[in-house]
Amino acid sequence: MSRIVTVTTDFGTADGYVGEMKAVLLAQAPSATIVDITHDIPRHDVDAARLAVARFWGRFPAGTVHLVVVDPGVGSPRAALAVTSEGRYLVGPDNGVLSPALVDSSAMVVALRIPDDASATFHGRDVFAPAAAALARGEPITALGSPPDKAPIVRRTPEPVRGPGGTIEGEVVAIDRFGNAITNLTADGVAAVVVGHRTIPIHRAYADVEIGEALAVVGSGGAIEISVRNDSAARALHLSRGDKVILRAGS
Amino acid sequence: MSRIVTVTTDFGTADGYVGEMKAVLLAQAPSATIVDITHDIPRHDVDAARLAVARFWGRFPAGTVHLVVVDPGVGSPRAALAVTSEGRYLVGPDNGVLSPALVDSSAMVVALRIPDDASATFHGRDVFAPAAAALARGEPITALGSPPDKAPIVRRTPEPVRGPGGTIEGEVVAIDRFGNAITNLTADGVAAVVVGHRTIPIHRAYADVEIGEALAVVGSGGAIEISVRNDSAARALHLSRGDKVILRAGS
Amino acid sequence: MSRIVTVTTDFGTADGYVGEMKAVLLAQAPSATIVDITHDIPRHDVDAARLAVARFWGRFPAGTVHLVVVDPGVGSPRAALAVTSEGRYLVGPDNGVLSPALVDSSAMVVALRIPDDASATFHGRDVFAPAAAALARGEPITALGSPPDKAPIVRRTPEPVRGPGGTIEGEVVAIDRFGNAITNLTADGVAAVVVGHRTIPIHRAYADVEIGEALAVVGSGGAIEISVRNDSAARALHLSRGDKVILRAGS
Repeated sequence: MSRIVTVTTDFGTADGYVGEMKAVLLAQAPSATIVDITHDIPRHDVDAARLAVARFWGRFPAGTVHLVVVDPGVGSPRAALAVTSEGRYLVGPDNGVLSPALVDSSAMVVALRIPDDASATFHGRDVFAPAAAALARGEPITALGSPPDKAPIVRRTPEPVRGPGGTIEGEVVAIDRFGNAITNLTADGVAAVVVGHRTIPIHRAYADVEIGEALAVVGSGGAIEISVRNDSAARALHLSRGDKVILRAGS
Repeated sequence: MSRIVTVTTDFGTADGYVGEMKAVLLAQAPSATIVDITHDIPRHDVDAARLAVARFWGRFPAGTVHLVVVDPGVGSPRAALAVTSEGRYLVGPDNGVLSPALVDSSAMVVALRIPDDASATFHGRDVFAPAAAALARGEPITALGSPPDKAPIVRRTPEPVRGPGGTIEGEVVAIDRFGNAITNLTADGVAAVVVGHRTIPIHRAYADVEIGEALAVVGSGGAIEISVRNDSAARALHLSRGDKVILRAGS
Repeated sequence: MSRIVTVTTDFGTADGYVGEMKAVLLAQAPSATIVDITHDIPRHDVDAARLAVARFWGRFPAGTVHLVVVDPGVGSPRAALAVTSEGRYLVGPDNGVLSPALVDSSAMVVALRIPDDASATFHGRDVFAPAAAALARGEPITALGSPPDKAPIVRRTPEPVRGPGGTIEGEVVAIDRFGNAITNLTADGVAAVVVGHRTIPIHRAYADVEIGEALAVVGSGGAIEISVRNDSAARALHLSRGDKVILRAGS
């Protein structure tokens, strides 16, 4: 059996930790195809990892194993999980990074066994990579552990809320590398968004406004994003994660 | 058919966009071999992407597909292209990033069809990756689109010019990670270069001068580079892209 | 023959140099499996490369070829080496980056031939990648060159020393991406470490202290590391490479 194993971490690459994990994967699952997703998740940023996983996990072919190690609680009693949903597998700590698959009520979850000789600081190498390798070899997920003692942690992007006067209030949930501010709002029948004292019109594409001008678009994930054409909206408009964004209906 | 698909973007990796593109590639061309070139092109820096592509594209085996997505004009009417030249394939926006292959007068070019449901902000996932996957599966390039309505944009490194007194004036076209300033000059019979008020001798290798000393060398791409041994010439000599550099003949 | 070739450099990826090396590998060893370790070694940081290589090289399957190009002396008379030890192969400059394999007294070493047309600034592409490709194709290491004229450079992490009053003095040998300060000390029967005026207790795992609190742990490589839970010890405790760390026995 030859399976894809994707790897997502907050380790950077320079220290060699990712090298150790890849060595374990290839030693224990020689025919696995390793696909780097990222090692640049901001350190310990479980939400950033969760949002990245949400984008890509279900697009990979059935059978793919996603190894996700953003694990500030390593060595604590937090569980180590393997999940299967929609034919894909995910392996990682029980801190919310696997939420995009766990929200599926038919997902199956096991708590991985922690070997006695596992390092208390590097479960990526000693717990999660071996589990991913086992799944890549075709072992059944049930062979890797037992049902967890308590329900896995599921983190969700906050839902927009109804504000005063029938408005809908959302927030910035992420800033991407381009400085786009990704919100939790969708665009049905909406003409503009309001952030701070500024009203920003919704357009189809960046090119619908002049360079340097602000706009909102429906981003590639389906949510409204606030952008500045060919510039960083986060910098130009002083936007950060958690900032309030209000929908304004078209008229 | 099993082909190499290289990937070059300005996306960074942390947001998961590259993960989405790789998922599309592997879902649509399961036997493709993905090779990361870089995701660290400075955002929207079409010239940096073009210079990187120039270095590597022709060195890969015939049949390789190069996916190049540095695309500030996404969602505008700019064309989406696939090119074949010297047995390799390149896929990317019509903004100059594919110039290294387009300068070949026998290159064949098609304008890709843009699916109606393609995101207006992420053609990398919805237009370019599917085209690269089709080429990796062995589909003919002519099946992906039609001849473009207008000639593709070709960007070239500026040519050196003759200056006053028979001098030759070039410029710094790139600064690399080591702080080397790469010029558009070649070295035939030249003994030194002049930048600002400083004359810098040409040597064979960094080790021909002392640590911390400036020199010029013929770089691995054939052009004169200004370096400081074991340091950054850009920082030590205050060099930037576009700075004028003058050749001084040997005597 | 299909072998894994790992790649470790200080090149970054944006300039396309790593792309050139991968092109050479795949052109000359089409069935090789390329595994990126890192391209983010701080530039010219031979010791950082050596420490990363030490972590991963022996964990990969026998037959793996490790290409390690951190090479501030490129173009100087320094030798270019291929090494085999414990069934793995390593290729890189004679500056200490290959030390983790060279310390094995049964390691076999050859000095690579430098082709006349090799760039004097890019042996990664013109010397080391072709040698790695040859090993990946299954060529014997003896076909790549001859025994080196002088013993290869072996760099070692400094040994702890006995200090006044029977204490043991070590030092910080690396700071990782998380700000953990990795020392050259091991933990037998030790209860705490002293750095500057501060005594830091040794615990099993980060989670044994409160968030923001300092602790020492036995890291995943077996050495004592100084950490701050969910924060950077390097920043919070002002630790740098070379700082002195003293063991304090349990009582």
